[in-house]
Parts: sequence; structure tokens; C-alpha cells
Amino acid sequence: MSHNTFGHLFRVTTYGESHGVAIGAIVDGCPPNLKISAEEIQAFLDKRKPGQSRFTTQRQEADAVKILSGVFEDEHTGGLRTTGAPIALQIENTDQRSKDYGEIRDKFRPGHADFTYQQKYGIRDYRGGGRSSARETACRVAAGAVARLVIPQVEIRGALVQMGPHKINRKNWDWSQVDQNPFFCPDAEMAKMWETYLDGVRKAGSSCGAVIEVTASGVPAGWGAPLYGKLDAELASAMMSINAVKGVEIGDGFAAAALNGEDNADEIRMRHGTPEFQSNHAGGILGGISSGQDVVVRFAVKPTSSILNERKTITKSGEDTAIITKGRHDPCVGIRAVPVGEAMMACVLADAFLRHRGQVG
Amino acid sequence: MSHNTFGHLFRVTTYGESHGVAIGAIVDGCPPNLKISAEEIQAFLDKRKPGQSRFTTQRQEADAVKILSGVFEDEHTGGLRTTGAPIALQIENTDQRSKDYGEIRDKFRPGHADFTYQQKYGIRDYRGGGRSSARETACRVAAGAVARLVIPQVEIRGALVQMGPHKINRKNWDWSQVDQNPFFCPDAEMAKMWETYLDGVRKAGSSCGAVIEVTASGVPAGWGAPLYGKLDAELASAMMSINAVKGVEIGDGFAAAALNGEDNADEIRMRHGTPEFQSNHAGGILGGISSGQDVVVRFAVKPTSSILNERKTITKSGEDTAIITKGRHDPCVGIRAVPVGEAMMACVLADAFLRHRGQVG
Amino acid sequence: MSHNTFGHLFRVTTYGESHGVAIGAIVDGCPPNLKISAEEIQAFLDKRKPGQSRFTTQRQEADAVKILSGVFEDEHTGGLRTTGAPIALQIENTDQRSKDYGEIRDKFRPGHADFTYQQKYGIRDYRGGGRSSARETACRVAAGAVARLVIPQVEIRGALVQMGPHKINRKNWDWSQVDQNPFFCPDAEMAKMWETYLDGVRKAGSSCGAVIEVTASGVPAGWGAPLYGKLDAELASAMMSINAVKGVEIGDGFAAAALNGEDNADEIRMRHGTPEFQSNHAGGILGGISSGQDVVVRFAVKPTSSILNERKTITKSGEDTAIITKGRHDPCVGIRAVPVGEAMMACVLADAFLRHRGQVG
Amino acid sequence: MSHNTFGHLFRVTTYGESHGVAIGAIVDGCPPNLKISAEEIQAFLDKRKPGQSRFTTQRQEADAVKILSGVFEDEHTGGLRTTGAPIALQIENTDQRSKDYGEIRDKFRPGHADFTYQQKYGIRDYRGGGRSSARETACRVAAGAVARLVIPQVEIRGALVQMGPHKINRKNWDWSQVDQNPFFCPDAEMAKMWETYLDGVRKAGSSCGAVIEVTASGVPAGWGAPLYGKLDAELASAMMSINAVKGVEIGDGFAAAALNGEDNADEIRMRHGTPEFQSNHAGGILGGISSGQDVVVRFAVKPTSSILNERKTITKSGEDTAIITKGRHDPCVGIRAVPVGEAMMACVLADAFLRHRGQVG
Repeated sequence: MSHNTFGHLFRVTTYGESHGVAIGAIVDGCPPNLKISAEEIQAFLDKRKPGQSRFTTQRQEADAVKILSGVFEDEHTGGLRTTGAPIALQIENTDQRSKDYGEIRDKFRPGHADFTYQQKYGIRDYRGGGRSSARETACRVAAGAVARLVIPQVEIRGALVQMGPHKINRKNWDWSQVDQNPFFCPDAEMAKMWETYLDGVRKAGSSCGAVIEVTASGVPAGWGAPLYGKLDAELASAMMSINAVKGVEIGDGFAAAALNGEDNADEIRMRHGTPEFQSNHAGGILGGISSGQDVVVRFAVKPTSSILNERKTITKSGEDTAIITKGRHDPCVGIRAVPVGEAMMACVLADAFLRHRGQVG
Repeated sequence: MSHNTFGHLFRVTTYGESHGVAIGAIVDGCPPNLKISAEEIQAFLDKRKPGQSRFTTQRQEADAVKILSGVFEDEHTGGLRTTGAPIALQIENTDQRSKDYGEIRDKFRPGHADFTYQQKYGIRDYRGGGRSSARETACRVAAGAVARLVIPQVEIRGALVQMGPHKINRKNWDWSQVDQNPFFCPDAEMAKMWETYLDGVRKAGSSCGAVIEVTASGVPAGWGAPLYGKLDAELASAMMSINAVKGVEIGDGFAAAALNGEDNADEIRMRHGTPEFQSNHAGGILGGISSGQDVVVRFAVKPTSSILNERKTITKSGEDTAIITKGRHDPCVGIRAVPVGEAMMACVLADAFLRHRGQVG
Repeated sequence: MSHNTFGHLFRVTTYGESHGVAIGAIVDGCPPNLKISAEEIQAFLDKRKPGQSRFTTQRQEADAVKILSGVFEDEHTGGLRTTGAPIALQIENTDQRSKDYGEIRDKFRPGHADFTYQQKYGIRDYRGGGRSSARETACRVAAGAVARLVIPQVEIRGALVQMGPHKINRKNWDWSQVDQNPFFCPDAEMAKMWETYLDGVRKAGSSCGAVIEVTASGVPAGWGAPLYGKLDAELASAMMSINAVKGVEIGDGFAAAALNGEDNADEIRMRHGTPEFQSNHAGGILGGISSGQDVVVRFAVKPTSSILNERKTITKSGEDTAIITKGRHDPCVGIRAVPVGEAMMACVLADAFLRHRGQVG
Repeated sequence: MSHNTFGHLFRVTTYGESHGVAIGAIVDGCPPNLKISAEEIQAFLDKRKPGQSRFTTQRQEADAVKILSGVFEDEHTGGLRTTGAPIALQIENTDQRSKDYGEIRDKFRPGHADFTYQQKYGIRDYRGGGRSSARETACRVAAGAVARLVIPQVEIRGALVQMGPHKINRKNWDWSQVDQNPFFCPDAEMAKMWETYLDGVRKAGSSCGAVIEVTASGVPAGWGAPLYGKLDAELASAMMSINAVKGVEIGDGFAAAALNGEDNADEIRMRHGTPEFQSNHAGGILGGISSGQDVVVRFAVKPTSSILNERKTITKSGEDTAIITKGRHDPCVGIRAVPVGEAMMACVLADAFLRHRGQVG
């Protein structure tokens, strides 16, 4: 991972600002001859798209993806297939509302990257957060859709497991619920509670954080490259690089610290001639290599920094002031982080698969 | 991070197994003309060294580091200086007790990398865990000692903040206590409690997890390379790559999910002509770039997998069995992870500094 | 250099096929606050543009570059400046003549990448050579224009020094001539001769090779990163990656093999308090590091593979056949390789500069 | 390729100075379960070893390689096998003659890296050239021996094809001759002539350059990763990174510039159901991908810079002076570059193989 590229063999490079001409992702190193279509990629983008409920920003972006390169017609079916060349995915910015950026041009929004970008670069595109905007995550989702084509045997699913202080009841977990509410919540009861809670947050001009859990089933034992490219290290980096993420854990994560060795050990038994773990505290990764169990990652998203309540800050020229961030913001950016987390899981696993195949065959 | 190398400009490559001839680190890209000595590096290794109290493995390794390359005598002082060439640091394995490895040769220890290494590679050095042994972390500590030379203005300090289920009282935090107990504990009271607790764990043949916190003071605003090489993403990867780590968080981490936007915002005021944050929920990183505040990272270490209590497992040839892991093991590997976490922080920051200087000057 | 990305800190990623929707380059890691404009970049593209004389392909591409990201208005001048974020440069393909690709769809053109792409990927975009088309070099030229902004103190100039078997007379070298003829030839006499020669080649339906020399003046001593990222190694890779290039040399290159040690040594004298080399056999690079002299690189371009004369080949399904490559082709692709070579020199040097600044300050 | 590491999946990192404690290579990413032995690696080192004839430096280095890690006993045969972990290869420096380095400590030897290392780093290990010494190439040879294990189907052979101005007669080419003379010369007649010639050079206290050709047979079609990781680009970088190399060519190389398109085209016919090229001007690479023909690379080595004849230079403190480089030097370093070139070919191909297998399966 360096600058705006991540991955080793399956590599993703992105570009673009929130209010620029376009954003896009170049997916390089993709295996050839995979069936691909803009529609399939679009379906994942639509999951992430803003403006779908009153709980996400009302910014209306069509977020229509175009494939500019790296694909070619199958001579038999006429459908598209990957060629092994870089796949350029582009999304034009259509809703660049012309407006007065005066406030955020001159003031640093607390919790935002405004201050650090200015300090690092001495210049910043302040319109909608520029490069640091969550809008960039659309590119991750598009790239993730391509990554899924590389590892069709793997099922990747994400869910919101905590909103503000309210955690789901894991006993109620039902994957089929995730598409039935605007929160990707697997606990139908909690989803209702969150609706009330988030309405309150929104009306108060405030915001809240969230925790997302992403699971990959069907990953065989053996993916991952110790020591510094461990599968869990790559996942940690991938998730932590998502906007507003402040923590990542694998399997039991921080809770593992409170366990003793007996309880934490995932015992193994043979079953129908195959090793079977009796539990999955490890989250499917041992020594940085997948064990064949579900790979389980969780990450924490901080509350949206853009809030309607006044906060103290300073101006670019160094004067004390205060700021209220108006505009179209998600009261809980964690919701839309669910498909983004899934996409990052897909990219990391696709890369791990190709690297494993490279080294071990 | 790929395979056994990490870093971009300040790069560390390591090699070696627990019971092989030697382990070592090649530190590449180090700036020239820095004063360096084996003694200084040794001092950090000694902090991590096993056998220092009854709470760490009784394996007696001298862990004496040699500098094989990349340094040259200062023509004036006769002391060593870096030359800009790769610095090879090597530690010979002196305590390779000849013993019967029968059990772990044929059985997979639950929670260990035994199973996944065998699945991935079809062969494994089972002696003491081979490449996946925590012994490798000595190389990280040696590399970290060099990294500190690159950023002398930064003070890096680590502490154990939770052992098993027992968290310190942050009000008692006193850095001077960290060297006064065998746990790197900043809370004198809790240190005493842990002593009793860990004795019990040890006598029960069990083990426990821990949480480590590492802080870097003196990091100026501007280090870090968005988007995928964000400073927090690199730290997450670095910490997660340490043996037995299952979770990483920056600043408030997972607790941030439960905050509202107002409470999470680190407000800014001018003070003596300089921006000053009123709090540090962000852990010193905004948008992947350092803000000038302390960089704060925490990571969770699972309980040592090697325990004296029997666990169910299978043999290499696929038969149900059980295992008791005898030998010299730390009941709480998290303790010795403190200097390792410090070292990884140093390496990541040194690399971030060089990259920032490269791009921005 | 990996797949479709090159560079370490100044990184270029490209995408796009000859007859696809668009081609483009993402320039990542560029220092912030550099003045930039599409017009400036366009000027370099125009140098490379086909259809400018009867000696280059008559394909009419506007080759109009757009900057999609990574720049922002200077608040004082209103002109654009780089922000440190990835700069996306895009060129739409406007002249995608609808035509019958039957011949090259089913047959492998000798000397082209048709055969190897098919063998490697099992699928290929045959339209105009797809990804392997020289059209891609427009992206290099655009990226090179940005690279020049990073190292304004360095003057990079290229010239054609051999066409077919006809070498220039180096005594006639006059940089001002390079813009006065359609060949970038610094020898006015030879330019005339080449005109006649190339007319003959073209009328005969044949093609010829060429040798290009690129010089960089103003490179200070110290750029380059031994051992495997030596400045000359990076230049060799950069030039060899250009379409149709078969050889690269630095300074005296292959001729150095025939010299003795005395003649090859570039002696040094002090002049006005500064070291001054008495000759430049080394081409400005010693031990992989720039010496302060002009950096001099030459590369050989093979004759255009697309010719009107029939050649034996096979079909995709494995039958003997023959092929005549009609269409719009340059009889000497080496001519348009001159600005491409300059661009690669610029990219390599910009990267070397940033890396040097990173390590040494 | 960056700093002291090269390769993507098959990665080599080296360290060490000419007169330091030891030199070594870490080979990372090697597939597991390959049979390996120190003896096999030693055999390649012995080919390169100095002091084997009066035509190479009389420095007496045992150059005995040790394998420190990354291998484990085969449970059946007791022989060693690779484990997939990094393989550390180390060679101790045993002949570090204690001597007065006064001259080269204070003066820059023309043609050497002395000047540029001093300019870049402000410090240098002047003993025997330090890091820039050709001694480092022993590490490449050791790594290359491992690389060969990865691609046993590929036969890699090198030969000296030009010494000073004297080229071999290609009609006399006989691979079996290469081991019959101290020059790796495939032309028996020319080998005799070179003996006389090089004796003269040596006695005159002078030196001469050389051209090496390395061929790889058995490379299947499809290896290489366009565009910037083209197989020829990687080979160019690998060869140019060898000490004293000033030029690299693939197939016909610079001679291709003088050909016309008809003569340069390698026509294809089916033979026994398989495509067969009628010539190999391309040197086995088209569009950066191997074609299935022999991969052919040539590189030019400049005359040894260390000569007994006086040359003008300056001192470190900036005064005009002159230097005679005494000591044990090869009059033609190109000879010992033959096994080094073979090793680099092996490393590049092993890496290309693994990457191809990763992407395409």
C-alpha cells in the first residue's frame, strides 16, 4: 500500500476529488477471461449510493460507472471479458452543486482532514473535502466488484453490528435481514430501535459512530503471506484506510485479551475426513494464513465529523473561530461503510489468492 | 508490506527461524551519517529479552546483536556512522536445546500457525514454531532501534494497559512506573495486582492476553500518505503483523463508535501562535496524516497458545488426538510485545518521515 | 515497475487500448503546489502526435488531454496547482475508425505482440494492437510533462541519431536543428538524407529502425539508489519498456567494451572550486548515482513490424498463412519515440530526485 | 527494484561491503518443497570466484556460502528443502587484508563510484569500494542458484562474446568450449587470441571491457507482465544493475535499428502442430512477453576502472591530484560477469514465472 495504490498482484489505483470532474479506479493484474459487465459493478455501487433513505446524505449522485479499458468482447457470446490489461472504471461527478465554500475554505472542520492536508501540502481542495471525501469509497466498491470475479468461490457479506452505543444481539443474527432495513442490520429488532435512535441523532444535528463486521466464507486454508504481508495485517491496513475508521479486529479481537488460553484455543477434530475447528476465536487466520474457517473482520467508524452543532476551531490564517458544518451529510457514515468494507475484503482476498497461487501453485 | 519486507523508503527485511542458525534484519534506505552502535541496539533487545523474570519464558538467549554492514567509522571520533547502505543486524541462536520435537512435529497446536503453515507450504520447520515463532520479533526490535535514530525528535513509549480482564486505571498513569515492574505497567497499583493474577495463571498452566498502548510524541503535522498508505493504515498493518495480535485501534478506537459527533470532535484553539487541539480522540491522525498531537495506538494480544492444559487437535496425518504444550513459554506474551510495538511504531514513523520529506521537501 | 505502474515515489499508472474508449495516466506522489496546466502538457503531446508529416501514421487523433483530478486553483492567480493528490490525465480515443479487423483478428502479425498476448492471456483486443499499441506512449508523454514540473532545473532533450543504417555525424550536432525537421534530427545534412531515405522505405511498403539519444542536463550529483535501483538500471528499464525498443545504453554504452581503462576513465579536475570531469564516457552515472555531468541514454527501436510486404505467419487456430499489414503505420516508429524517451527520462529523474530527498534530505 | 531489493514475488535483498564482516542475500518468496543444498549453490559461486586464473583478481576468498534459514530437513531423505520462508545466504569475508587505504580514502578513483557515493551520502566505506565493490555480485550468484531451482525446465547459459575490441566468430560457437577456457568463451580460436591479448593488457597495467551474452532455453510463451514490468524491461534493469555494465540489448539489439521490417520480422510456421519461429531477431520476447523461443540478452561491461596507470583526479577536500590504483584487480571484470549475468537472468525468470502463475494460473 503506497500513496493511492494498494495490492501486490491484484492492484487498485484510485484518483479523484469529491467535487472534481470524475473519480475512478484502475484495477491492474486481474486474471484474464473473467466475465464482467458494468451492470454487475453498478449493482454494488448502488448499495453504497447516497440518497437512498433519510439516513444517508441527500447528495444525488447517479454514480454511474463506465468501463474504459481492460475488457473485450467474447467472440462467442458478445459479452465482455477481462483481457489481463488494466481495467479503468470511471464515475463522473454530476452533482457538483455550485455553492459558496467560504466557511470550509478558510476554517478547519474538527475531526476532518482539512487541517492535516493543509499542513502537509500547503494547499487543499476544500470543496466537499476534496480527495479526503468519503466519495472516494465509491472507487473501492467498484474495484471490489471486480475482485469478487477473481474469487467466485468466496462469499463476502457485511453487516452493521453497532450503531452509536447500541450493539445488536448476536443471537438474532439473520443474514436475510441485512437487505430488509436501511442499516444493513442483521438483527431485525435492533434495526427498528436504530431507526428511532438515528432519527433523534439527525434531528439533533448530531452524528454517531458504528461498528461493521465483514465475513468471508469459502476461503481455503493457505492464503496469506507471512510475516509482514500476513492476511490479517493486509486486512487491517485495508479497513483502517477507509475514511473515519479508528479500529480493526480479527475474530475475537480485543475481547481475546480477556480470555485464557484454553477458551481462546480453537480445537480441531476430524469430520468426514476433513479438519474441522470447534470454534472460531481466531477469525479464520492463524499465523497470518487463512485456516479454512470464515474470515471475520470488524472495524469501528467514528461519528461523522460534519455536524450542525457549533465547534471551536481556527482559521487558515490562525485565528480562533467556530464552525457549523452545513450541507448534506450522513448522520452515521458507518452505514455506507458496509459495502466499502466488503469491497476491501474482496480486494485483499483476491490479491492473497493470486499471490498464493504464484508462490505455491 | 510484502512477504518478509516492510516499509517503502525505510525498509526492513527479516529472516530466520526459532531454532535455526541465526535470525536477522536488513535495514535498507536508512539516511547516512547517523551515529549508531551495537550497544544502543542491544539495549532495546535487552528490554524484550526472555528470561528476565518468572513471568517470561525461561529460554536463555543472549540475543547479542552484531552489525554486519552499512556502517563505517567516523574519521574524527572513531565511532560508527550509517553509510546509507543496507544495515545487516544478526543474532545467532545460541540456545537451541537439542530435544525431542515428536509431539509438535506430528500434531497441530491449536491457536498456533502449525496447521496453516502445513496447509500452505506442505512442509514446516516445527522446531519452536520455526518462522512463526515470536523469536522473530527480536529482529523488529533491532530494526526499530535503527529507526529511532532517523527520528530523534520523536519519543516513543509503550505500556501494558490490560492483562487478561484487568485494565489499568488511566488516572494512575505514570510513565516512570513502566520500568519499575516486570510488566511495563504505568499503574503501580495494578502492577501489583497483575503479579498475583499472573502467578495464578502460570501455576494453573494457563495463559492470558493483554492490551498494549504505544505513544509517539513529537511527530510534526504532515506525516502520512493518503489514501492507502495512510499513517493509521500503516500502523494497523505493522501492529497486526506482530505475533498473536488480534486487534488494533488508533486514538479512541472502538470506543469512538459509541460517541456522538460533538464529543468526538477534537476542537482547536490558537495558543502562543500555534494551533492546539483541546482533546485527542483522533489519536494524532486525521485523514491518514499526523496532526502534531501524540500518535496513540493500542493493540490486543491473544493469550499464549502454548499451554499446559490439554486441548483437542489432530495429527498431521489426520487423526483425532490431544496435545499438551510443554516447554518454556510466556504465560502472557503480551508483556514482551511492548518493546515490539514500540519498534514497529518507530519503523513506520521513520518511513513516513522519509516519504514525507521526499514528496514535500 | 510492476504491471502497469512504474516509479517509487513519483508513480505513473496507465490504462487503455488503441481503439478503446480512452487512455490515461494517473500520476501519483507529485509534490504539491507546482503550477500546472493542460496546455503545457498538451504541448508535449503535440510533439508526439501522429499525422504531422508524411513520415508518421496518418491516424488523426486530437490527443487532447484533460486533467481530471489532483489540481486546484491557486487562490491568488486562479491558475492551477498540484495538490499532492493523484493527477488523472485522460485522452479520449476519437478516431476509432469502424473497420474490418478480420485479418489481424485471426492472424498473428510477425514482430507484434499478437502471438504472445494470445498465448499469455488466451484473449486479446486485436483492434489496433489493443493494449500493446504504441498509442499508449501518449500517456507516458503526458506523465513526463508532469515530471518535468518536479525537476525544473533539469533540461531534458532528445534526438534521433540513427535512422535505418544511417547515423548522424556527431560533429554536426546542433540542438537548434531538432525542431527544424520532421525527424528530431540534430544534424541538418543528415536530416535531408533521411528524408530521401525514408520516402524510399515508405514507398517500398517497408519500414526501418532508429536510435534515439536523450540527454538530461542539470542533474546534480547524488541521484540514484544503489544497488538494484541504480539510476542507470531504472533508465534501462524505463526505456526498454517503450514499444519496439531492443537495446539501451548509458554514456559510451557498448562502445565502452572496446576501450581500455585509461581511455574510458573520466578524469577529474577542480575548476572554479568545483569538480569538473574531463570527459563523459560514463554518461553521467557512476555506481548507479548521478555524477553531476549530463545523463546520456541511447536506445534502439526496431523497424515497425506492420509492413505492406507479405510475411509468413499462422492463424489463431494453427494454420500456416501469410499476412500483409495494411492500415496507417509509421514507416519509422523511432521518430515518435523521441518525445517518449524524453518523457521516460523525466519520470525516472523526478522519482530519483524525490527518493534522494527522502533518504538524504 | 528499489534500493537493495529486487523482484516482486521472488525477491532478493542483499547487504554487505567488500571489506566488512560478511555479505549476504535474503531470498524471499521462494516456493516451498524445492530440494536445496549449500553445495549446489557453492558450485555457482565457484564459477565466479576470483583467483582462479591469472586473468582474475588474486584476492583469495573462500566465498563459502552458508544457508542460515528458510530450509528444513525432508523427513524422508534427510536432505534440505525450502520451506517458503526467507532463505538467508551468507558469505563471510575472510581475506580482509589489513592494509593502508590512504590513497583511496582521500582520492576519488576515476570511473569508480567513490565520487558519487561521497557526494550522495557524505560518507563512504572506501575499503575495496565498500558497497559498490563487485564483491557484492557473489550474492547475486547465490540468489541465482536458488532461482534456478524454481524453474528447472529452463536452461540458462552465458558466454563472453567480446573482449576489448575482439568479438568472437559466431560461426564457431560451441557451448562445450565455455568451460574449457578461463574466459567462458564459446569460440576456441578466439579464446587463444584473448589469452595473448589479455596478457598484454595486464602487463601494461591497463584493462579492457567485454560483452556477455546470456541465453535461456525452455522458457514457455507467456512470461512477462506488460507494460512497465515487461520481461525485457526487467532484464534490462537486472543486467544494468550489475557493476560496470553500460549497455543491454535483447535479441538483435542495436543492430535491429539498421534492419528493415521484412528482415527483422520473425516469421512463423506450424511444425508438428506447434508454432515455430523461423528466426529470433526478437530475442524471444514480443510485447514484453516471452514467445517460447530462447531469451537472448547481451550486456556490455566497461574496462575495469582500477588500473596501474596514473589518472588525474581530485582529493576529497578538493585539490587536483593523480592516482594509481594498486591492489588486486581483474584486468577484465567482464569475465566474472558471466555467471553474474546468468544469475540475474535466473532471478528475473523465476520471478516472471511466479507472477505469471499468480495472474493466469
